[in-house]
Amino acid sequence: MTIKIGVLGFGTVAQGLPKLLAEKGLHLEQMLGESFAISKVLVRNQEKREQLANGDWSYDFVTDIKEIIADDSIQVVIELMGRIEPAKTYISQALKAGKHVITANKDLLALYGSELSRLAEDNQVAFYYEGAVAGGIPILRTLANVLALDKVERILGILNGTSNFMLTKMIDEGWTYERALAEAQALGYAESDPTNDVEGIDAAYKASILAQFGFGMRVDFDQVSHQGIRQISPVDITLAQKLGYAIKLLADVRQLASGLSVSVAPSLIPLDYPLASVNGVMNGVFVESLALGQSMYYGPGAGQLPTALSVMADLWQVGRVILGQETVRPFNPLQAPAQLARQEDILSIYYILIEQAEVSKFNQLGLAVSQSLALEGYQAYLTPLISLVELEDRLNQVGLNPISLIKVLGE
Amino acid sequence: MTIKIGVLGFGTVAQGLPKLLAEKGLHLEQMLGESFAISKVLVRNQEKREQLANGDWSYDFVTDIKEIIADDSIQVVIELMGRIEPAKTYISQALKAGKHVITANKDLLALYGSELSRLAEDNQVAFYYEGAVAGGIPILRTLANVLALDKVERILGILNGTSNFMLTKMIDEGWTYERALAEAQALGYAESDPTNDVEGIDAAYKASILAQFGFGMRVDFDQVSHQGIRQISPVDITLAQKLGYAIKLLADVRQLASGLSVSVAPSLIPLDYPLASVNGVMNGVFVESLALGQSMYYGPGAGQLPTALSVMADLWQVGRVILGQETVRPFNPLQAPAQLARQEDILSIYYILIEQAEVSKFNQLGLAVSQSLALEGYQAYLTPLISLVELEDRLNQVGLNPISLIKVLGE
Repeated sequence: MTIKIGVLGFGTVAQGLPKLLAEKGLHLEQMLGESFAISKVLVRNQEKREQLANGDWSYDFVTDIKEIIADDSIQVVIELMGRIEPAKTYISQALKAGKHVITANKDLLALYGSELSRLAEDNQVAFYYEGAVAGGIPILRTLANVLALDKVERILGILNGTSNFMLTKMIDEGWTYERALAEAQALGYAESDPTNDVEGIDAAYKASILAQFGFGMRVDFDQVSHQGIRQISPVDITLAQKLGYAIKLLADVRQLASGLSVSVAPSLIPLDYPLASVNGVMNGVFVESLALGQSMYYGPGAGQLPTALSVMADLWQVGRVILGQETVRPFNPLQAPAQLARQEDILSIYYILIEQAEVSKFNQLGLAVSQSLALEGYQAYLTPLISLVELEDRLNQVGLNPISLIKVLGE
Repeated sequence: MTIKIGVLGFGTVAQGLPKLLAEKGLHLEQMLGESFAISKVLVRNQEKREQLANGDWSYDFVTDIKEIIADDSIQVVIELMGRIEPAKTYISQALKAGKHVITANKDLLALYGSELSRLAEDNQVAFYYEGAVAGGIPILRTLANVLALDKVERILGILNGTSNFMLTKMIDEGWTYERALAEAQALGYAESDPTNDVEGIDAAYKASILAQFGFGMRVDFDQVSHQGIRQISPVDITLAQKLGYAIKLLADVRQLASGLSVSVAPSLIPLDYPLASVNGVMNGVFVESLALGQSMYYGPGAGQLPTALSVMADLWQVGRVILGQETVRPFNPLQAPAQLARQEDILSIYYILIEQAEVSKFNQLGLAVSQSLALEGYQAYLTPLISLVELEDRLNQVGLNPISLIKVLGE
């Protein structure tokens, strides 16, 4: 008996699912011993409904969530609407109705992931969301099934394809921030309001999910410090290259003696680090762990078919649960009390850009800089390892307000 | 009731398992609801047995496999002896005795993987071997659990850490092949007989396993063409760099219209490809597939703890089977009839190195070369896309025997 699916939302990503099911559904059926079929699809309004019903799709398009929740023949709900509400309410209703739920909604998971996971557990149903972080890269499953048995020490991620595309073009083609943004919008990578992408908010949502999978810690979203790419100037890019670094918007989740540090910020990455060659709209997640050492997972961070593949992987596991081939288990097996690192324990090298007129002021800081470089009236320095609070404190003391202050990876 | 393990072999890799169990065993127990304990360990002879029994280990060291096979309290056998025999016989006995088996023995799996998998299926026990390819990188599980739902088109892999270390040093430090080999041996990366590593045999074993996981096809090992790194000269390295390429020993598993092509050969990789920055003893597996597009998995290809982590991931899944949390399933869900590509369908760009005295002969080939470069009496060319059979045929016709002939990735 075919396993019936209700899909919430039918935008670009959701329409990838029928495509992939058409290509691989038979194969999935062979592996599982049972087939899947999309039964009902929830759309926004009557107009949308009629438009789709008159198209190529044979699904039952509905506008009322009750038609899916109350339909006992539907065992799996796949939420691909995005945003917080009404997605949160609908998912909660589906879980309470004993339906397994798959989503790729990172905003929702970052903010309400534990609440929804608990609800799934209470109702003994599966709640999987591989597509929520790094699109098609199976990073959550890898963290949950393999790295959960290791001791993860740090996760570094290039998690937002839009900003990475923009930075790549700013570096490789010398584009300005404005041009890069306009092109990203023209190509459909960035929305008309690009705030979440360029301000690091989208990456911060994903960093908070990675913190849960890598360390079991639920870090409140407002405790993830995030900074965007707006302030990166052509001078920074030129100097970074001369110093041997790429600039990337980097999520950094790191276990320190005093606790976990979770941040998203533009960062200088040495050109010979594997993450430095994650370019364009691609994503990369780099993990440092006790047993495995260094590993990296690279692939498209978004897109119709990559996300559909993640949903398919979730769907296979849900199918195994429905058919009694495996028990329901939490997607993320790790749970630990959240303990945040003290600000003064978070040490890093920093790149500081000032005007040459301020060099004497900089020298008063007494920092043993490892490199310095001049360009067109500007001066750049790489500091020794120092905490941001101490660095800012010292800068205040000498009355120096740098043009740029960017984290640098490496010893 | 603790799940008891019998371990076959107690070399470096096997000794990583108790280390990782000491670190993460409690955690594994929390995730699973049951603990694991190594009960008996098979060692080579009495001498070894006494030596170990007098050491720090509290295991029951035995020299006769029967003591493990006949012990009904042992539910899991982990084979870490390596080589074909007696590993194959012992694994077969364990499977027939209804024990779940975990191994990291790539040689054995490449040659007898399907036979042993069938035996496991017949006896309804698990047979997992994440550690067999690319050490700690969870590439087999990713292929089996995620990419099996995609349509894999090509797998490119840097799968042998020893030869990659050597090539990296030959490129970065200008070492000769001989020096690179001596250093690899001094560091313990290469054995005293390095044939399997430097001749591409070890990589070919792994490529054959990747062919099974990526395409479901069992390709006989003698149908995997393999070529090693011995013939790479300093001139090749210099010219490759000038042309914008890295040289890597690359496994290439590729679906063509006429069938599958599986080969291992030194290859020129454009410097901006993600695989080009897989250096030293690290491994990388790059996958091209329909839905996901391009993805890459990077990490240590060997080593005590990375391999132990792969064994732990297998062990967790075996534990779930033993405890009824999931059903036994084949590690690799794909099966398709093996169909090899016709040689004339396997097209590639080639790098050809000749002496400058032979340039007029080369010109008689009538190849529309895309690049050519001269160095110290030598001349290098990049050919258009051509099959190796046709290229060799043409070279024979004009009586030209190139000094080097190396595959080049890219359009």
